[in-house]
Amino acid sequence: MKFTIEQSLLISSVQDVMKAISSRTAIPILTGMKIEAREHGILLTGSDSDISIESYIPAESDGNVYVEDIEPGSIVLHARYFPDIVRKLPENKVAFEADDNMKVTIRSGRAEFNLNGQDAEEYPQLPIVQTDQSFDMPIALLKTMIKQTSFAVSTMETRPILTGVNVTLENNNLNFTATDSHRLASKDLPVEATGMQFSNIVIPGKSINELYKILDDSEENVEISVTNNQILFKTKHLNFLSRLLDGNYPQTSRLIPDQVKTVIHAKTKDLIHTIDRASLLAKEERNNVVKLSTCGQDSLEISSNSPEIGNVTEEVSVTAIEGEELKISFSSKYMLDALKAIEVEDIKIDFTGAMRPFIIRPTNEEKILQLILPVRTY
Amino acid sequence: MKFTIEQSLLISSVQDVMKAISSRTAIPILTGMKIEAREHGILLTGSDSDISIESYIPAESDGNVYVEDIEPGSIVLHARYFPDIVRKLPENKVAFEADDNMKVTIRSGRAEFNLNGQDAEEYPQLPIVQTDQSFDMPIALLKTMIKQTSFAVSTMETRPILTGVNVTLENNNLNFTATDSHRLASKDLPVEATGMQFSNIVIPGKSINELYKILDDSEENVEISVTNNQILFKTKHLNFLSRLLDGNYPQTSRLIPDQVKTVIHAKTKDLIHTIDRASLLAKEERNNVVKLSTCGQDSLEISSNSPEIGNVTEEVSVTAIEGEELKISFSSKYMLDALKAIEVEDIKIDFTGAMRPFIIRPTNEEKILQLILPVRTY
Repeated sequence: MKFTIEQSLLISSVQDVMKAISSRTAIPILTGMKIEAREHGILLTGSDSDISIESYIPAESDGNVYVEDIEPGSIVLHARYFPDIVRKLPENKVAFEADDNMKVTIRSGRAEFNLNGQDAEEYPQLPIVQTDQSFDMPIALLKTMIKQTSFAVSTMETRPILTGVNVTLENNNLNFTATDSHRLASKDLPVEATGMQFSNIVIPGKSINELYKILDDSEENVEISVTNNQILFKTKHLNFLSRLLDGNYPQTSRLIPDQVKTVIHAKTKDLIHTIDRASLLAKEERNNVVKLSTCGQDSLEISSNSPEIGNVTEEVSVTAIEGEELKISFSSKYMLDALKAIEVEDIKIDFTGAMRPFIIRPTNEEKILQLILPVRTY
Repeated sequence: MKFTIEQSLLISSVQDVMKAISSRTAIPILTGMKIEAREHGILLTGSDSDISIESYIPAESDGNVYVEDIEPGSIVLHARYFPDIVRKLPENKVAFEADDNMKVTIRSGRAEFNLNGQDAEEYPQLPIVQTDQSFDMPIALLKTMIKQTSFAVSTMETRPILTGVNVTLENNNLNFTATDSHRLASKDLPVEATGMQFSNIVIPGKSINELYKILDDSEENVEISVTNNQILFKTKHLNFLSRLLDGNYPQTSRLIPDQVKTVIHAKTKDLIHTIDRASLLAKEERNNVVKLSTCGQDSLEISSNSPEIGNVTEEVSVTAIEGEELKISFSSKYMLDALKAIEVEDIKIDFTGAMRPFIIRPTNEEKILQLILPVRTY
């Protein structure tokens, strides 16, 4: 096995693939990165058995030559050293060679690294996703859907299914939902008619966050393929494969109240800043509880009290308050997460009383919904 | 006690003073920050008993008014919350008030924080540095001296005196020396005739690193005052006080070899990059040992070998090699620290054999010296 490659491309491919590699794994060879020289390019693979990432560097693309002198073959290199070596090589041309004894030589400028490789035959075969169930969407929209929902997954293993994001595709509507049973984030996106339907796909939170980090903000598309235990995200040079969580995701639609007693219309930023300040003294307490009380038709009082430390009170003007007077307490962390995820200037919050979940949405849109359960303090 | 102050000034003063405050301290009140309103300004104090920092905000300076409505008094506030509160206040005008029950109210815009203060009478009195032993130097030069030496202090408590930087002033020459007994860094600076002499002043490494961080890169002067157990660094609005280490700092001049068998003249950057690459595979080993061998008159071979992982070899051109052939091994970390500290393009290294300390200096200057003990491997 042999090839000569551009350092800059190798650096970014290695960085991507590293996101799937963990130094703690039950299968020792997975601490390594598989490097495969094919006739028309180089394929790097990393996996922690939950997530697998493949990055392909074509020998030629758009008339540019990136890889030369390829003699096909494959090898596994320990991922602890390889990324730093690649990053610090002195010149952009990197010659890579593995002999029959799995000794790997990396040459660049006058530097020569000799590394002990491992047999690529021992590297586990990645599951092959064979399905007609696939559809395309812009990378930017996928990233938005992840960002607006994935923060709400549970971090507790008591109900493992809640540690993932539920993805459904029904009637040409793609939905991402995450909940930790104290709050819920949900985002809809109409997609082009695909004829596809699926509802019980749950992607582990860790996988979807790694996917978010690895996707670059290009205007390109990602192809998503689903089987009953794997999901594959495929971009031009990257395959991101994740196992799915086993189990039935709960029906969450029944959590959403159908009546409204108080509606607050407000500027997102004003609320964020005021609640952030009120939460400063609530750090010690579980859940960082802050209180909200309506004052007339256009003002809220946000407050927090930690007997040992002190208290904080702030009035904040809002656009309008409709309906009943309200006093309610909630986790400032959940509220800030939700407000920041919504990413619009104007929001409305629908309350159905101090002990019922409330719902935050953009003023003029129903595609995103953030639900929070209040905390009993009054 | 009462005053109204500009938030921006308060933020930077609080940040400075926080550098002396530790949440782990034997004296509980030192987890707090002392705030003292004086007739002509506000004084903030923080201390962990080793380091004490005072920052003064004048009511007026250069015709600008920074503090108004002062009613003198003082209070101690818990430092865990105060900095975040100050930083996140909604408006630049901050009204501060403490009542007789040590309740503190901080108002800005429509936000009001009520905090439980502590009695400033209980805050320890800082030692008063009374001495004629003081001299001035530019902040920028002091920072350079710290940066070029303090990294070499010992982190081991086996010889506590080596955890500090030895400062001497003799014959109008200021010297900083640090050593951990495996390497030594020393820097001289001629100062204006002060008539002062001192030699056994040892500033704790932690103190001097905090001082480095707190001094801004202005062209102003710092006044340094020395007693036998304290050192005070005084800038326009800041007092930085550190205790000194007890004990006798060793005579280090005898460590410096007086003969030379091999001299290498090289470009600092070339050496840094080559040694950095060679050290990549040596991470597992104690001290990251790399080997250096001369090749003729103008080239070195730098190499490293970790049997389990692999090996690396690189030739690097140097300006000139004079004297005997040489094979020597040393800690790549110590070598990189020294080369980076020197901050010049061209250096020379004086060797007196594979088992004797070697010395790195700028090519045309004797004011800075980095000494490293080799490691026995050949």
